[in-house]
Amino acid sequence: MSNINIRSLAKELNLSIGTVSKALKDSHEISLATKQRVLTIAKKFHYNPNPYASSLRRKKSNTIAVVIPEVADNFFSLAIKGIEEVAEAKGFHVLIYLTYESFHKEHKILAQFNNGRVDGILMSVSSETASTSHIEEFDLNKTPIVFFDRVIDGLEIAKITTNDAESSFNATNHLIDCGCKNIFYLSISRHLGINNKRIKGFKKALFERKLKFRESNIINCSHEEEHNYNLFTELFKKVNKPDGIVAGVEKLITPLYSTCKDVGIQIPTELKIISFSNLPNAHFLNPSLTTITQPAFEMGKAAAKLLFKAIDKEGYCIKNEIAVLPSILTVRDSSRI
Amino acid sequence: MSNINIRSLAKELNLSIGTVSKALKDSHEISLATKQRVLTIAKKFHYNPNPYASSLRRKKSNTIAVVIPEVADNFFSLAIKGIEEVAEAKGFHVLIYLTYESFHKEHKILAQFNNGRVDGILMSVSSETASTSHIEEFDLNKTPIVFFDRVIDGLEIAKITTNDAESSFNATNHLIDCGCKNIFYLSISRHLGINNKRIKGFKKALFERKLKFRESNIINCSHEEEHNYNLFTELFKKVNKPDGIVAGVEKLITPLYSTCKDVGIQIPTELKIISFSNLPNAHFLNPSLTTITQPAFEMGKAAAKLLFKAIDKEGYCIKNEIAVLPSILTVRDSSRI
Repeated sequence: MSNINIRSLAKELNLSIGTVSKALKDSHEISLATKQRVLTIAKKFHYNPNPYASSLRRKKSNTIAVVIPEVADNFFSLAIKGIEEVAEAKGFHVLIYLTYESFHKEHKILAQFNNGRVDGILMSVSSETASTSHIEEFDLNKTPIVFFDRVIDGLEIAKITTNDAESSFNATNHLIDCGCKNIFYLSISRHLGINNKRIKGFKKALFERKLKFRESNIINCSHEEEHNYNLFTELFKKVNKPDGIVAGVEKLITPLYSTCKDVGIQIPTELKIISFSNLPNAHFLNPSLTTITQPAFEMGKAAAKLLFKAIDKEGYCIKNEIAVLPSILTVRDSSRI
Repeated sequence: MSNINIRSLAKELNLSIGTVSKALKDSHEISLATKQRVLTIAKKFHYNPNPYASSLRRKKSNTIAVVIPEVADNFFSLAIKGIEEVAEAKGFHVLIYLTYESFHKEHKILAQFNNGRVDGILMSVSSETASTSHIEEFDLNKTPIVFFDRVIDGLEIAKITTNDAESSFNATNHLIDCGCKNIFYLSISRHLGINNKRIKGFKKALFERKLKFRESNIINCSHEEEHNYNLFTELFKKVNKPDGIVAGVEKLITPLYSTCKDVGIQIPTELKIISFSNLPNAHFLNPSLTTITQPAFEMGKAAAKLLFKAIDKEGYCIKNEIAVLPSILTVRDSSRI
C-alpha cells in the first residue's frame, strides 16, 4: 500500500478514523488490544503521521523555539544546554533560530511563529532591535514568550536576566581599586537594554569614586573583529589612552589582546582588563582574564521552566514574572596590581 | 472578523480562493493591482497563512535542518555561519537541532523529519552513533541529507570532510620533528570515523618515523571536563608519560592545560601539544596553542550548496558526491623546540 494515511489505515483495520487516531495517541479511551492491533498494522505499512496534519489537529507542536543572536558566544551555548535539560524532561524538541544580530531576521523569524508552529519562545534580542513592534504585534496568549539575558524593558513579557548594572559597577570599582584612573567601557550596541545597564553601572562607579566621565570613555564596537582591532589600535595611539577597560562581551577580548600585543601595551602593568565572559579558557589566556561570568546555564534553565508554566497551563499568565540571577566576578592576572 | 482564513478573505474580496492564494504567493499570473488589493485586506484582518496548512499544500517548508552534536565547539558555530549564508541567499530558514552526542536523541530527531517537516538535512553525527539503521531507513529521495565533518563512511550519502588522516599525520610528524619520542593521541570516540581516521594518520606517522605504538598511546576521553582532568592527571603520574600530545578536539585543551599547571608539567619544554581546534583565541593561550584548523565556515558553505543542488532540482542525485577541504597547521608556542 503506497501513500498510506490515517484513512487507508482505518479501512485496513476496519476501524473508524477517530479510533485509529486515538489509538496512535495512546488514548485511555482505547483498549490495549486495539492499540496493539493499530500499532502492528501502522508499523507494517510504515505509517508515519504527517507532522503538519497532526499539528493542525493537536494544535501542539511539542516544540519550543530559542531565538538568539549567535551561538559562537559561550553564554548562549551554555544557556541552550540549560534550556535543553528542561525541554528534554518535558519531552519537547528545541529548535534554535539565529538572528545574527539582524532585526530584519528577528522580525521574519518571529512572524512565522504567529500561527502555532511552536508552543513557546525563548528569546534574546538582536543588537539591532530598537523597535518593539514585532513583539507588540505578537499574540502572547497563543504562543508565550520568555526573554532571557537580552530583554526589552518596558514590555510586559517574562524576563530572566542577571544583575547587569551591579556587575558592571563592581567590575569598574575593582579596576579603580587596582589603581586605574582612565577607564573605558567597550560597548556592543546602544540599542541593547542590557548594554545600557552595564554602562549605567560603569558611570555610577566612576561618579561615586570621583573619576571624570566623558562620552568618549564609551567605545562603540561592532561585531567585526577587524573593525574592532582597528578601533582599539586608534584608541591606544591617543594621549588620553585607557589604563583600564571593562569589555561588555567576550568576543572583544581576542581583538583587544591582539592590539595590545601588536602595539606593545603590557597587560596588566599598563592596562588592566575585565570582561563579561563565559570563556571556558579565560584562566589560560596570556595573561589570564579577569571575568564577570553570567550564570548562563542557570539562566537558560530558569527561562525554560518559566516558559513551561505557560505552556503546561493554558491561560496561566507569566508576563509579569521577572528573575534576576547574579553574575560572579573572578579576579585573574589581567587586572592584578 | 475573527478566525480569518483564506476562504473568508476571498469572500471579503469577492475573489476566488485560488486567486487570493496566488496573490499572496506573489504569482506572476496575478496583476499588481489585485495583489495590492489582497495584501491590503489581508493586513487589515491580520491574516497570516497557517504555516502547517500552507506546508501541506506546497509540500515545501523552505526550511533546512542542521543536526549537530553541540554548538559549544567553535567548529560548529563557524560551520553554521557558512550554512546560514547559503540558506539566506535561497530564502530558507535554518533550524538547528542538537543531539548532545546522544544516539537516541539523533534517532528521535531524524525520525520526525521522515514526513517533510524540512526540505533537507545537514548532519554531523553524534559520538555515540555506531549503528546506521536510522539513516538507512530514512527516505533520502524525499528529504536529501548531506553529511559534514563527522560523516559515516560506507553509506551512500553526500559528504563534506577535511583531510583528517593527513592532518593528523602532519601533526604527529611535526611533534616528532620537535624531538618528541613518546606521543599520545587524545581520542573522543572510537565510534566516529573522523576520529579513527585521525588515529590512523597518527599511527602512520609513528610507524614511518620508527617510533613504537602501543594501544595505550590512545587515551579515550569523554565529554566531561572533570573526567578528562582526572584521566590526564593519572597519565602524567606514569613512568611512561607523554612528551607530546595530539588532541582530537579543542574541548580537551582546557582540562589538559589545567592538569599541566596543577601537576607542574611545563609546556612546551616537558610536553609539546597540538590540537584540532577552531578556538579564536588559540594565539592568546598561555602558552599559545599549535593548532590544526579545519575550514569550518567553508565546509558549512560547501555542505549547504550541495544540499541545495538536491532541493532545487527534484530527482537530482547527490548521494555519491564527496568533497575534501584541507585543514591548516599553525605552529605556536605549545610545540616550540
